Amino acid sequence: MKQQRSEIVTGDRRITEVTDRCAAFAAEQGGDGLLHVFLPHATAGLALVETGAGSDDDLAAHLDELLPRDDRWRHRHGSPGHGADHVLPALVSPSLTVPVDAGRLALGTWQSIVIVDTNADNRTRTLRLSFLAG
Amino acid sequence: MKQQRSEIVTGDRRITEVTDRCAAFAAEQGGDGLLHVFLPHATAGLALVETGAGSDDDLAAHLDELLPRDDRWRHRHGSPGHGADHVLPALVSPSLTVPVDAGRLALGTWQSIVIVDTNADNRTRTLRLSFLAG
Amino acid sequence: MKQQRSEIVTGDRRITEVTDRCAAFAAEQGGDGLLHVFLPHATAGLALVETGAGSDDDLAAHLDELLPRDDRWRHRHGSPGHGADHVLPALVSPSLTVPVDAGRLALGTWQSIVIVDTNADNRTRTLRLSFLAG
Repeated sequence: MKQQRSEIVTGDRRITEVTDRCAAFAAEQGGDGLLHVFLPHATAGLALVETGAGSDDDLAAHLDELLPRDDRWRHRHGSPGHGADHVLPALVSPSLTVPVDAGRLALGTWQSIVIVDTNADNRTRTLRLSFLAG
Repeated sequence: MKQQRSEIVTGDRRITEVTDRCAAFAAEQGGDGLLHVFLPHATAGLALVETGAGSDDDLAAHLDELLPRDDRWRHRHGSPGHGADHVLPALVSPSLTVPVDAGRLALGTWQSIVIVDTNADNRTRTLRLSFLAG
Repeated sequence: MKQQRSEIVTGDRRITEVTDRCAAFAAEQGGDGLLHVFLPHATAGLALVETGAGSDDDLAAHLDELLPRDDRWRHRHGSPGHGADHVLPALVSPSLTVPVDAGRLALGTWQSIVIVDTNADNRTRTLRLSFLAG
């Protein structure tokens, strides 16, 4: 199994696209298989969404509706509302699998792989890619 | 890795069961392994839920609570409220993996594999199945 | 593909940690690969979250906000509000994949694997682990 571990600077961005990095890794493998994408973090997730036509901003904004950054959370570390970040990965999982055809990600036209990261206190994330040849 | 790509007519249905199709594909492979199910679409997801006792309707109805079809969305293409469809796959992922025992899906008694598709503008979906022999 | 099926007593707990069990199974395999974790149940899911600093309680409590246990549900079996349990797995999937490095789960420092189970009527769950060697 080929693996790659890389550091992604998410900074203040709540949605960070990593499609190109995943595609480059898949291309290096060259065959059919499954690409597993993983974040070893407890306050971030991965999603397959359209980017660039407003939906990435919609997702970031709507997460504040679904997981309000107020004082309801028992987890009290970090910035106010940070407890919400710890519930996020139950809804937006940090584990994602994508088929690969001859080294190409089999994504739909409008699908991008993004890191969803509402935790501005953590500005760098580790992305783990694993390729299982078919 | 054996793969199958098929077209599923979802039409107006928000929940479309594809368990039989997945089971037939797994049966053709015949051994132990993992079945990966994938939708190459940015406005649909996959879920494992009970069907036929109201829960599929509950899921479809409740998604309108979680992702209201109003004018809050920045994504402005398509029908009113269509921006909600683009946030859906972050919560209901289009990627799902199911164990296979000797060609049989290892689903629980009440688990069905369904396409969750709130986007009535897109009436046909591509379903991608991949089998990784164990 | 090595597999293990075990019974987990969840009882009244809404969040039940299974990291140690998953880690022990991965250690028995000893190499690199992917661990697939699966629940053959229609009213439970799996999540990767921090435990022990309030976030597990936050998740359990917040699921009642996202999926209220009232009379809105068409699914009418079981306890009042049980329809919510059947929508849960669409948001918190019962399927999860984790990379394994030389027999060790490649989890982040604060990530634990938990069963999310809001259905107190079902006090025992089957956990299925599958290891795909890389």
